[in-house]
Amino acid sequence: MIRVAVIGAGYWGPNLIRNFAACPETELVAVCDRDQQRLTQVLRPYPGVEAITDFEQLLDRADIDAVAIATPVNTHAPLGVAALQAGKHVLVEKPLAGSVADAEQMVEAAAAANRVLMVDHTFIYSGPVQRIKQIVDSGEIGDLYFVDSVRINLGMFQHDVNVVWDLAPHDLSILDFLVGRLPRSISAFGACHANEAADIEDVAYLNLDFSDGLLASFHVNWLSPVKVRHFIIGGSEKSIVYDDLEPTERIKVYDRGITVSDDVEAKRGVMIGYRTGDVWSPHVPQVEPLAKMVSHFAECIQQGKQPLTDGESGLRVVRILEAAQRSIKAQGGRITIWDDLQIRRAA
Amino acid sequence: MIRVAVIGAGYWGPNLIRNFAACPETELVAVCDRDQQRLTQVLRPYPGVEAITDFEQLLDRADIDAVAIATPVNTHAPLGVAALQAGKHVLVEKPLAGSVADAEQMVEAAAAANRVLMVDHTFIYSGPVQRIKQIVDSGEIGDLYFVDSVRINLGMFQHDVNVVWDLAPHDLSILDFLVGRLPRSISAFGACHANEAADIEDVAYLNLDFSDGLLASFHVNWLSPVKVRHFIIGGSEKSIVYDDLEPTERIKVYDRGITVSDDVEAKRGVMIGYRTGDVWSPHVPQVEPLAKMVSHFAECIQQGKQPLTDGESGLRVVRILEAAQRSIKAQGGRITIWDDLQIRRAA
Amino acid sequence: MIRVAVIGAGYWGPNLIRNFAACPETELVAVCDRDQQRLTQVLRPYPGVEAITDFEQLLDRADIDAVAIATPVNTHAPLGVAALQAGKHVLVEKPLAGSVADAEQMVEAAAAANRVLMVDHTFIYSGPVQRIKQIVDSGEIGDLYFVDSVRINLGMFQHDVNVVWDLAPHDLSILDFLVGRLPRSISAFGACHANEAADIEDVAYLNLDFSDGLLASFHVNWLSPVKVRHFIIGGSEKSIVYDDLEPTERIKVYDRGITVSDDVEAKRGVMIGYRTGDVWSPHVPQVEPLAKMVSHFAECIQQGKQPLTDGESGLRVVRILEAAQRSIKAQGGRITIWDDLQIRRAA
Amino acid sequence: MIRVAVIGAGYWGPNLIRNFAACPETELVAVCDRDQQRLTQVLRPYPGVEAITDFEQLLDRADIDAVAIATPVNTHAPLGVAALQAGKHVLVEKPLAGSVADAEQMVEAAAAANRVLMVDHTFIYSGPVQRIKQIVDSGEIGDLYFVDSVRINLGMFQHDVNVVWDLAPHDLSILDFLVGRLPRSISAFGACHANEAADIEDVAYLNLDFSDGLLASFHVNWLSPVKVRHFIIGGSEKSIVYDDLEPTERIKVYDRGITVSDDVEAKRGVMIGYRTGDVWSPHVPQVEPLAKMVSHFAECIQQGKQPLTDGESGLRVVRILEAAQRSIKAQGGRITIWDDLQIRRAA
Repeated sequence: MIRVAVIGAGYWGPNLIRNFAACPETELVAVCDRDQQRLTQVLRPYPGVEAITDFEQLLDRADIDAVAIATPVNTHAPLGVAALQAGKHVLVEKPLAGSVADAEQMVEAAAAANRVLMVDHTFIYSGPVQRIKQIVDSGEIGDLYFVDSVRINLGMFQHDVNVVWDLAPHDLSILDFLVGRLPRSISAFGACHANEAADIEDVAYLNLDFSDGLLASFHVNWLSPVKVRHFIIGGSEKSIVYDDLEPTERIKVYDRGITVSDDVEAKRGVMIGYRTGDVWSPHVPQVEPLAKMVSHFAECIQQGKQPLTDGESGLRVVRILEAAQRSIKAQGGRITIWDDLQIRRAA
Repeated sequence: MIRVAVIGAGYWGPNLIRNFAACPETELVAVCDRDQQRLTQVLRPYPGVEAITDFEQLLDRADIDAVAIATPVNTHAPLGVAALQAGKHVLVEKPLAGSVADAEQMVEAAAAANRVLMVDHTFIYSGPVQRIKQIVDSGEIGDLYFVDSVRINLGMFQHDVNVVWDLAPHDLSILDFLVGRLPRSISAFGACHANEAADIEDVAYLNLDFSDGLLASFHVNWLSPVKVRHFIIGGSEKSIVYDDLEPTERIKVYDRGITVSDDVEAKRGVMIGYRTGDVWSPHVPQVEPLAKMVSHFAECIQQGKQPLTDGESGLRVVRILEAAQRSIKAQGGRITIWDDLQIRRAA
Repeated sequence: MIRVAVIGAGYWGPNLIRNFAACPETELVAVCDRDQQRLTQVLRPYPGVEAITDFEQLLDRADIDAVAIATPVNTHAPLGVAALQAGKHVLVEKPLAGSVADAEQMVEAAAAANRVLMVDHTFIYSGPVQRIKQIVDSGEIGDLYFVDSVRINLGMFQHDVNVVWDLAPHDLSILDFLVGRLPRSISAFGACHANEAADIEDVAYLNLDFSDGLLASFHVNWLSPVKVRHFIIGGSEKSIVYDDLEPTERIKVYDRGITVSDDVEAKRGVMIGYRTGDVWSPHVPQVEPLAKMVSHFAECIQQGKQPLTDGESGLRVVRILEAAQRSIKAQGGRITIWDDLQIRRAA
Repeated sequence: MIRVAVIGAGYWGPNLIRNFAACPETELVAVCDRDQQRLTQVLRPYPGVEAITDFEQLLDRADIDAVAIATPVNTHAPLGVAALQAGKHVLVEKPLAGSVADAEQMVEAAAAANRVLMVDHTFIYSGPVQRIKQIVDSGEIGDLYFVDSVRINLGMFQHDVNVVWDLAPHDLSILDFLVGRLPRSISAFGACHANEAADIEDVAYLNLDFSDGLLASFHVNWLSPVKVRHFIIGGSEKSIVYDDLEPTERIKVYDRGITVSDDVEAKRGVMIGYRTGDVWSPHVPQVEPLAKMVSHFAECIQQGKQPLTDGESGLRVVRILEAAQRSIKAQGGRITIWDDLQIRRAA
């Protein structure tokens, strides 16, 4: 039984509280928040859980094995590092941190303390993404040609982060999970409308180049009158469309594509034909991704396993977010992730 | 009655032939194509229309007032300029030309000959786009925040042009019609998969920056397993969604958005609220856009009017296409359209 | 503050418990169920609420003003009548009772005791149905021509009731709310597949005739592979489509219809033309219908008001359900509701 | 080469003309219509086809092997029988005739003359229906539980037939093709709104009972503000949904259903569980059903084959249409098809 304290009782905290309270492998020992009133309200259904207002106090508690951090993004690193150094296992809300430097510090602290560091990339634990991963790994879609995601709606404005840091972690973590490598470069575009004074982007486009023909593109938007969650994975053999708003057929696998013939036709260049085939929508069991995530965290601690969404994957996502941010401010200037990596590594 | 010859009996030619034959203001006199067999086949239902294989022959014919050019894009300029110089009015398939230089030459030739030069940006003559123009011009959507279009499907591969030159003219001409000005800069991304040898992009993203907060983004794709035609115009007051695949409600006007409050809340920066309101789908009469386009061409000739889609609008679209092409080859490098324009104008 | 006891902690009970506990005008005093273990489980988040296993005990409690009954349908009448006779106000899960005789007994008991009797026709308290009622009452849709509802899905099999008693109360209560009168007759068709031994219909069609051209038809089905909730109200001027699965635009008002011209054309009979117009989707605020229902129950008790869904409306729905059942067993034989009514009234 | 004359150049005639002109196995020799002006207009693209205004004249022509009749429904029998007796093969628009007596006369005339009599139940020759037939015949959907079709839209009013005779032949012919037997009885409901004077129903519901648990229900409607073409085939193992308005995935096969367990649970009766599985949308090639129908007619004449949609199948459809009509006029009174059949046969 892993004894857990949740830090932060704001927007997302209650979801973690509910899941840690329900998970058979974890015991919710305490919840920490500076706002005593909020704490009382959130803990009403959990009379046995302790309310703590002072984070430092948690660190000395021997009866707490792990902490789950759901505080504003810029506090992830100081809180997370302190907890790791105090010997706690750490789960952090997405994104892992507000900068690459912060994220790297967290990864290093976890390694030094030999503790589990995991980031709550919730979608990775969802039925559809797990199923897509199986299909991609089976090889049946062939070479990856493009990944395209549209994640737009009338958004809940954040005052500390822009639409990229708010929405893109979902797409970037799914992409990282499916592809398993960093893009060579990123160019991003954005604009501020609602909150120009605060310079907070509400519309943004990310274009990631993987150097081998794979292009990934993400449209994130807080101003869209309609809600769209449309994710396409285009392959040489098959393609997958994942529509998270579709009530029952969330994933569809299309046996459609282009066929490049070997017969060289002198005049016209390469011969291309079309293949239209069946569509298959595999059944995806309905599970609560957060419940699976929480249970996976406990399992990793108990069995010394590497989390699916470990600190390194969190760091990779933050690396792209930071580059996207820099690119937007440079009006779409191309940021090379690989070079950046080498420079940092060499340094 | 405007006497017309259609040049090119390939993919698009028969559509022009059918419409010029049916239009009460025009008389289809001749069709010109090098391929005699194709000509015979295409003209079977039109026994009174002359078949001509030699373009030069058309130029001397005093009984031909105008020509409609539906040939490969790189031949638009030589054929168009020759026709204009021979005193013919000219309608050209989109895009107007294969390069800015070619397009400029056509515009100049039309001015010198004092003849109508019009480009077939068909969508401008469609019911939905005409209705959207009215709504945008009425001012009810407020400031333009973003324009986003997804135009993807399993594509008909062209051997002379890539997906940008094939599909983006539709979106760029609609954008030009609605906004009426050129973007400051463009960055574009693309990749070749099916036809790598010929270096023909089949997936591309265009990002246009208008310098005043308006962002326009277009996704064009020949490899998508699903067909999408989704065009969003995001405004400060209302937003429009135009779905060309929706059988009856193609346009929807959303009275939804964000509201920036004047009450400055010290801590959180600007206060933002949400407004959700009614959705209104105006009835759009079903008309064949091509019929309206052909009739407008005749009207412009007869009454000396400026076409809605004149040579200048065709040139503006080609300017962006060429810049997009250069940006793709520069891996998303930002191409400044305004500077480019000034340099060309200064030259 | 109305002091309430909920009777029945099974499938629906916890929803009532949650809403009575949250409603500012009610105090949840006790929950009654024969199954002590179930009671303990359900009441865990409500330490202040009393668990009672003996229904009789409730009746003598002076600190209980009202009971909410969520038990199997055949127990509604005995429990409800006993509670009314003990001076309690009564809320009953839909349908009000398992037979017309039972429902009549409840209505009479409420009148005799001068207590509120209300049935939980939840949909009547939903945003969309409230909005549709306003539109219908405004007269803008003109004469009612037809009402058609499809309510089908892979169903949760009940062992005591068939698909008609399970699903049709929703449609019948909405129809009753909108139209406000009983149909002249009903014919119904059904079949048993999954549970032939128990003679429980899983597919059924109800056809209601209002004698003045209004036809209402309902398709209820537990065997459908797809879920559909599609409700059409066809009028002479406008029509309404209510799709409860549509995430945002649940109601659409269509300004489309037929126009009967007065010009008599001898040969062809009446001249008919088509009118296609705009579509309008009014914004419907998202509220929890159950919260509004519970609050309305309290208000009716406090202010001596007639509930929107009073015993009479519950009785009208049961009258149709019982007639539908008889018609199904008579293989679609027509059951006259009006005559039935007169005979009963005369008796 | 089968030499064909088309009779009737009204609404549907031009479609037959176009297809007989294009079919390699047929030669369109003549078109017959009383309206000379209409004939001239329709035959403009077919200079080689003879225009005939007198039907009788056709009968004597030895160079005409077959006639295709696209005239008002009440003329089908007299024209068809005359043509058969003159030794012509006959194709008739749906429905085969306006009454069972007429249809029987046509079937008998065809048998006596030993000529092909075929009815244009176009849907039977469409890709989706052909594919559904294969799936149903393969047995993989198990026992047929229910067939439900919704075929509604703002309709094209007919002045000679009601919505049942206009739209239901499509559904009844598909049902007949898939199931291959007549229902035991039918009950139908309808109402006249737009054309009350002429007593022409514009909304109707048909309920067919097959006596073995299979229920078929059809909703046909000319007053619906929205167009729906939704056809469900519910089976014990799998179910099929055929949505004719779905652009690409017209057929979906659902591996979902209910499972009746053998474990008898005393209290609750039969144990029922749910099975949710994959969805599969087979690729259906896009073909023009009318082209296939015309070609099949020629093939049946040339090879002496029985048409898929022969006179008998047309008669079965008319039998149900006539019974539906009688049932509507008897306010849903149940019409027994089998008895009806026996009485007629005995007579």
